[in-house]
Amino acid sequence: MTYCLGIVLPAGLVLASDSRSNAGIDQVTRVRKFELFTQPGNRVISILSAGNLATTQSVTSQIREMLNTGSAQDIFASHSMFEVARIVGDKLREVIERDGPSVTPYGDPSGSFLVGGQIQGETPRLFQIYSAGNFIEASLRSCFLQIGETKYGKPILDRALTPDMQLDQAAKLALLSFDATLRSNLSCGMPIDILRYETDSFNASNLAMLKDDDPYWNTLRNGYGEGLSGLVKMLPPPPNWNS
Amino acid sequence: MTYCLGIVLPAGLVLASDSRSNAGIDQVTRVRKFELFTQPGNRVISILSAGNLATTQSVTSQIREMLNTGSAQDIFASHSMFEVARIVGDKLREVIERDGPSVTPYGDPSGSFLVGGQIQGETPRLFQIYSAGNFIEASLRSCFLQIGETKYGKPILDRALTPDMQLDQAAKLALLSFDATLRSNLSCGMPIDILRYETDSFNASNLAMLKDDDPYWNTLRNGYGEGLSGLVKMLPPPPNWNS
Repeated sequence: MTYCLGIVLPAGLVLASDSRSNAGIDQVTRVRKFELFTQPGNRVISILSAGNLATTQSVTSQIREMLNTGSAQDIFASHSMFEVARIVGDKLREVIERDGPSVTPYGDPSGSFLVGGQIQGETPRLFQIYSAGNFIEASLRSCFLQIGETKYGKPILDRALTPDMQLDQAAKLALLSFDATLRSNLSCGMPIDILRYETDSFNASNLAMLKDDDPYWNTLRNGYGEGLSGLVKMLPPPPNWNS
Repeated sequence: MTYCLGIVLPAGLVLASDSRSNAGIDQVTRVRKFELFTQPGNRVISILSAGNLATTQSVTSQIREMLNTGSAQDIFASHSMFEVARIVGDKLREVIERDGPSVTPYGDPSGSFLVGGQIQGETPRLFQIYSAGNFIEASLRSCFLQIGETKYGKPILDRALTPDMQLDQAAKLALLSFDATLRSNLSCGMPIDILRYETDSFNASNLAMLKDDDPYWNTLRNGYGEGLSGLVKMLPPPPNWNS
């Protein structure tokens, strides 16, 4: 399993993915599910993957091969993030059409993506590509999208994420959402790749790969854990309901 | 969907279920997802249901019909909670064997249960009955079990629930787990039926049906929401990772 999260705000984008890949429970590896495609000053595009690793790697490898070819599948030639999302969706359909019949007897060939970024002339945009190749876009009304193991990390976003948030605050919430997921589910694992992309910067350098021993990660999760326990203790206990 | 949660501690049991698919729940003891079977001074048994309502109602109706018959399926004649769990599992197999073939063309006939309680001579015990009729038991190492829409409400339990907790504290956590689920998922809804059962009391009167406008419920969820936002704000933001 996987957990990938994208947040789009007026301030910019936060994109994050875990790194655990498993084929059964005895073949566990670490993979990067976070692909970055940048033309400094012109565009920053990231593609985060969940699902069948062979499928999603095939999609991103082929997209990388098409860069700067000027073809209809060259995401450096796309005029909008919508066009990029369509290219990813179309490529996913091609891969599943090609490999699906051979893979299905052994397992699920499907995959999904978060595609987030900004191209000159647009605001930052964020899309979720379904395995069918169609896609939806996030908006200020629902400013985050998740793929993979999404449920554990959703409540904290539902509670605390607001569209007027600064990027740093949103990145902190994203990491707390990952902490909830990692604590409750073995199928997601460190390291976490996380990007903070500031609107109109066209620069993707505020990127980190957080390992288990990352000092900020540990400060954050310990501080949250302790704060939460303290908060729960402070809240009043239920009254006696003896009937 | 449904969310049911059981917690077993040395101090006792907390059992809670939502009500979204229920129609008439004015009488707490007749709520369909939360069935209570008590012999004051001798045993308290509750059965919480998720899944196909026709299936689970058929199981609990038949178990109620067998009460005081002295038959092998009479849970008032059982010598242990293990025996009760086996009766529920066997009855579930019978119902699915009978109705499954007719139901399957229209939908999933499966169901699952939490069975928690105490019988004189034992400590309180808690079981989860799978649709296959087999079951597992909670222990101090993993002192809660969930059925239905389980993931949203799991992180707060993983973080804050400890086996040495008092019943009131555990009930508070149970309700916060429900709040997380209800906020993030439309398929679970109020009212919540919740029982605090104190070890060796053999008395199930500390039972409530919490509606939307319940003052304690609102104090708790608002206090938690505000406290959580404050906590997140107080935690340090991520450092700059510019590479």
